[in-house]
Amino acid sequence: MALKGNVLVGQSGGPTAVINASLAGVIQEATQHPEIGGIYGMSHGIEGFLREEIADLRAETDATVEALLRTPAAALGSCRKKLTDDDYRKILALLEAHEVRYLFYIGGNDSADTSHRIGKVAEEAGWEMRVVGVPKTVDNDLGYTDHCPGYGSVARFNALAVRDAGRDTLAMHSVDTVKIVETMGRNAGWITASAALAREAPGDPPHLIYLPERAFHPDRFLQDVKRVVDRGEGCVIAVCEGLRDDEGNALVTFKHDIGTDSFGHKQLGGVGQALCDLIAEELGIKARADKAGTIQRSFGAAQSEVDVAEARMAGAAAVQRACEGVTGHMITLERVSRNPYRCETGTAPLEAVANAERPMPNEFIAAAGNDITPAFLEYARPLIGGPLPTYARLQMKPVPKKLAG
Amino acid sequence: MALKGNVLVGQSGGPTAVINASLAGVIQEATQHPEIGGIYGMSHGIEGFLREEIADLRAETDATVEALLRTPAAALGSCRKKLTDDDYRKILALLEAHEVRYLFYIGGNDSADTSHRIGKVAEEAGWEMRVVGVPKTVDNDLGYTDHCPGYGSVARFNALAVRDAGRDTLAMHSVDTVKIVETMGRNAGWITASAALAREAPGDPPHLIYLPERAFHPDRFLQDVKRVVDRGEGCVIAVCEGLRDDEGNALVTFKHDIGTDSFGHKQLGGVGQALCDLIAEELGIKARADKAGTIQRSFGAAQSEVDVAEARMAGAAAVQRACEGVTGHMITLERVSRNPYRCETGTAPLEAVANAERPMPNEFIAAAGNDITPAFLEYARPLIGGPLPTYARLQMKPVPKKLAG
Repeated sequence: MALKGNVLVGQSGGPTAVINASLAGVIQEATQHPEIGGIYGMSHGIEGFLREEIADLRAETDATVEALLRTPAAALGSCRKKLTDDDYRKILALLEAHEVRYLFYIGGNDSADTSHRIGKVAEEAGWEMRVVGVPKTVDNDLGYTDHCPGYGSVARFNALAVRDAGRDTLAMHSVDTVKIVETMGRNAGWITASAALAREAPGDPPHLIYLPERAFHPDRFLQDVKRVVDRGEGCVIAVCEGLRDDEGNALVTFKHDIGTDSFGHKQLGGVGQALCDLIAEELGIKARADKAGTIQRSFGAAQSEVDVAEARMAGAAAVQRACEGVTGHMITLERVSRNPYRCETGTAPLEAVANAERPMPNEFIAAAGNDITPAFLEYARPLIGGPLPTYARLQMKPVPKKLAG
Repeated sequence: MALKGNVLVGQSGGPTAVINASLAGVIQEATQHPEIGGIYGMSHGIEGFLREEIADLRAETDATVEALLRTPAAALGSCRKKLTDDDYRKILALLEAHEVRYLFYIGGNDSADTSHRIGKVAEEAGWEMRVVGVPKTVDNDLGYTDHCPGYGSVARFNALAVRDAGRDTLAMHSVDTVKIVETMGRNAGWITASAALAREAPGDPPHLIYLPERAFHPDRFLQDVKRVVDRGEGCVIAVCEGLRDDEGNALVTFKHDIGTDSFGHKQLGGVGQALCDLIAEELGIKARADKAGTIQRSFGAAQSEVDVAEARMAGAAAVQRACEGVTGHMITLERVSRNPYRCETGTAPLEAVANAERPMPNEFIAAAGNDITPAFLEYARPLIGGPLPTYARLQMKPVPKKLAG
């Protein structure tokens, strides 16, 4: 039975290159359902909603909504806020006041937790409402889904960046012998692993990949680096910002408490430079660190076409399911065919998704702990939306030498 | 009078997104001149040539040479080597042994110095040879030329990166309030300044830009940051890796001597993170640093079409001029029309170009020292090869509030 009322949509957590495609999917699908009245957007997620900062998204032109597909970062504004009991009471009052019957929150596991709790509070108060989550995270660490919208694009960026910065090192290895590309990834190595998609031929960069799923051993790392450097053509390494030691502690964290958010996540970053220092000290070899930081998650020019299409599909599916009566669930992506690659949407309970994290499985990590496996490449390659542009490879046919020595 | 003999071409210094387009220009033009026999490429610049590592570039297919236009980094390999007197003697012997009558060295001011000296050694020895330099540097700091091939593409990357990472901060400013994007640029602010091309409307990021042409004052910087943060929408800052204090010393250098190359250049980088620490300590505000590092200079997907075309043109012009009898000069770019933008090639003596550096002129730097001027934008905008992709801007029409407080 059709539930009449307004839609409220919000974006939460770290932006991605395609979170706005999910927003476009929600808006475009919502306009197709006569039971839906207003389409409201939270300004800066639940934080702005608590201040009653809400935008009328029906006022946007079709062209603007379509342009969201190509627009990275979170167009509504985002936040990362842990709610108090008072907050939930206020949210309920606002939902009732604005006759919100459909809530779509685009985010990761913290956002799934928030959505789940809002749904529960509404249910307990007898406010009939459908709450459906739309998955979003570059970290790709949500459970119950084949992968997460946002991941394909950050993976494409890193494949491009490591291929190009890798060629840079191959060219300059007599000066800058080692390059470390530090990627995002708090607890899971999915983003770092995507650097492997840069490889086109055996021996191509990256030569080494270190993931937070395996304890980092400085001695083994230095042995690995030395072995690659000794081949004489430089060494390109992808490392995760969240690398941990034997005891599970992050190798490098931001030294100020100001870098800890309301969920208790400490700001990471800087492990690439720390490892350059280690290589200089222990091996006497020059190393450089590149750390694209938030550029990698928001770089529009590296959007994966597959990712854009799936992000929109997930947004639209959330509206469809909610209109069918689904609530308390998140949309998932299910790989229904490997070759050709094809995903459909499914659902998983928000409560199950909330606060669960999915690390890289063992079968995607090389036994030596310094690389990924072919199974990972098979999993990840379709997600980046087509092959990387083709580059020239010179044969470099030697001219016979004329001088001795 | 036609000088019969072989061409030798090399790539030197830091790679760029278009240095291979200049190589393609040299090869494609050289094949048009019947007086030219072999087309030889130095493997890893003069360093490989000293080991007599030379490739026969006539063995490459036309398709491979054409693909060089789209291939970033230095396909022949590069180096950064200061030559000894012994080296110059050996180079002369090799030039004679391989009947090299045309030398094209694609590089920056150190490379111009090398080319100039090789030309002099050959002249003194009576070995008739034409030496023409092809400009290349992302730093854009060569004199006698309107700009340098390589700059337009690094500028396009930084415009894209700062626009996207800037939108990321606008979305997330309640969590990550300040973003610092650290760009390359040893002594000149050209690359950092290009971040300003990210702006499309007043108030757009980057909000502050700091260049090495102006002494960096931490107190003024903190005041600037606080003023922008107080507006309540975050603060995006572009800084140059080469920022200096009042006494001209780099704010941050690599702590190991291993980071100093044979020209005495110390490895830079890390100023963004250092300024994040300063902001956290002094203002208690969370800041994040992005440092794309070598990714920015080698990112193929951010090639500027204008840059690709001009890099090829400069390579081809070097061959044309040499065949006309020019020697001891570098190809320059001359802006013959501002609107529509159009550049032609000219020449400047290698000796004049060598070791000269061109900082940003005063008229391109805002009086307060924390931004660029409109004159810089007028100069730089045509170089990035067309506008950035259009993004959605939501109106965010407010929904009337229903609850008080």
